[in-house]
Amino acid sequence: MKSPSSLDFLTEALRRLPGIGPKSAQRMAYHLMQHDREGAAMLGRALSQAVDRVQHCAMCNTFTEHDVCETCLDAERNPALLCVVETPGDQLMIEQTLTFKGLYFVLMGRLSPLDGIGPKDIHLDKLISRATDGIVQEVVLATNFTNEGEATAHYISETLKARGLKVSRLARGVPVGGELEYVDAGTIARAMLDRRTT
Amino acid sequence: MKSPSSLDFLTEALRRLPGIGPKSAQRMAYHLMQHDREGAAMLGRALSQAVDRVQHCAMCNTFTEHDVCETCLDAERNPALLCVVETPGDQLMIEQTLTFKGLYFVLMGRLSPLDGIGPKDIHLDKLISRATDGIVQEVVLATNFTNEGEATAHYISETLKARGLKVSRLARGVPVGGELEYVDAGTIARAMLDRRTT
Repeated sequence: MKSPSSLDFLTEALRRLPGIGPKSAQRMAYHLMQHDREGAAMLGRALSQAVDRVQHCAMCNTFTEHDVCETCLDAERNPALLCVVETPGDQLMIEQTLTFKGLYFVLMGRLSPLDGIGPKDIHLDKLISRATDGIVQEVVLATNFTNEGEATAHYISETLKARGLKVSRLARGVPVGGELEYVDAGTIARAMLDRRTT
Repeated sequence: MKSPSSLDFLTEALRRLPGIGPKSAQRMAYHLMQHDREGAAMLGRALSQAVDRVQHCAMCNTFTEHDVCETCLDAERNPALLCVVETPGDQLMIEQTLTFKGLYFVLMGRLSPLDGIGPKDIHLDKLISRATDGIVQEVVLATNFTNEGEATAHYISETLKARGLKVSRLARGVPVGGELEYVDAGTIARAMLDRRTT
């Protein structure tokens, strides 16, 4: 018994999605063919359209359909402040806090030597030329507080400080609503060291 | 800040895949755009091709690119035996055992009244006309041994027996390699009732 080859091809292609193994891919292919052909056609169109249209912003490196994204073109923002994030999702989270009115640079990744991800893969050259445009005064590092994110922040910080820029990092500490009993010791230690006079 | 609309459209379309929520869909969309555009283009082509070409076998109801699938056309098989399974994956498992040389009927689902899946959705009419072609002598029910699978088997069994067909069901019992201590009581009870003289 052989599956029809288009179905095999579809199952194979679905495995290119991150986190999808052979069993899930087969389940998805069957589901689409049996219950949601309209969804399958729609996903097909969405993929080709995205491949055709989505590119990287010349200024901040995020995904956009234009040369420069809407955020970078926004004249209301403070061009002296540049916030560095790992992904567009992180940028979205910061935007939702309404506490930052500067511009962004999206690394589209983080340093991870074990996975072979070096400075080139996080577009460090592009960040350096962006940050040293003469307008940016302060670079706020908002990479994640994971090991890789911290290493990335450290690396970028050293690189940009050597070029005379002011570099800051999001504060670490006890999360809002956090109960000390349930916060890990490392976080409390950091919050103690970084304590602020009130 | 707004995501580019093709990226939003792609994220929305990825949510049509079973088991994919908004966060996974976003992660997949970013991954494809950032790291695997070739994979995205390939998946797009695979989807359109599958939607265009994959149809149901006129005889056994499985997925095929022709009117009748290869299995049903296989002259080496015994046309008097018809095995009823829930999905093409189940059929594949049975084929791998090399113990069955008859033909198949694939329900593409199972009865599940709570989900609104009735006899029509599992192509019961098609199964009845297939099984009463005058050539099929015995129908082997190989639906799953879940509640829904058992209910489906019971329903089909009653329907086909009323039309004078011989209907059988895969044996239940202790799995090969199973240790009694770790097998559930229901399975052991069934194995005791269905015990065979050796």
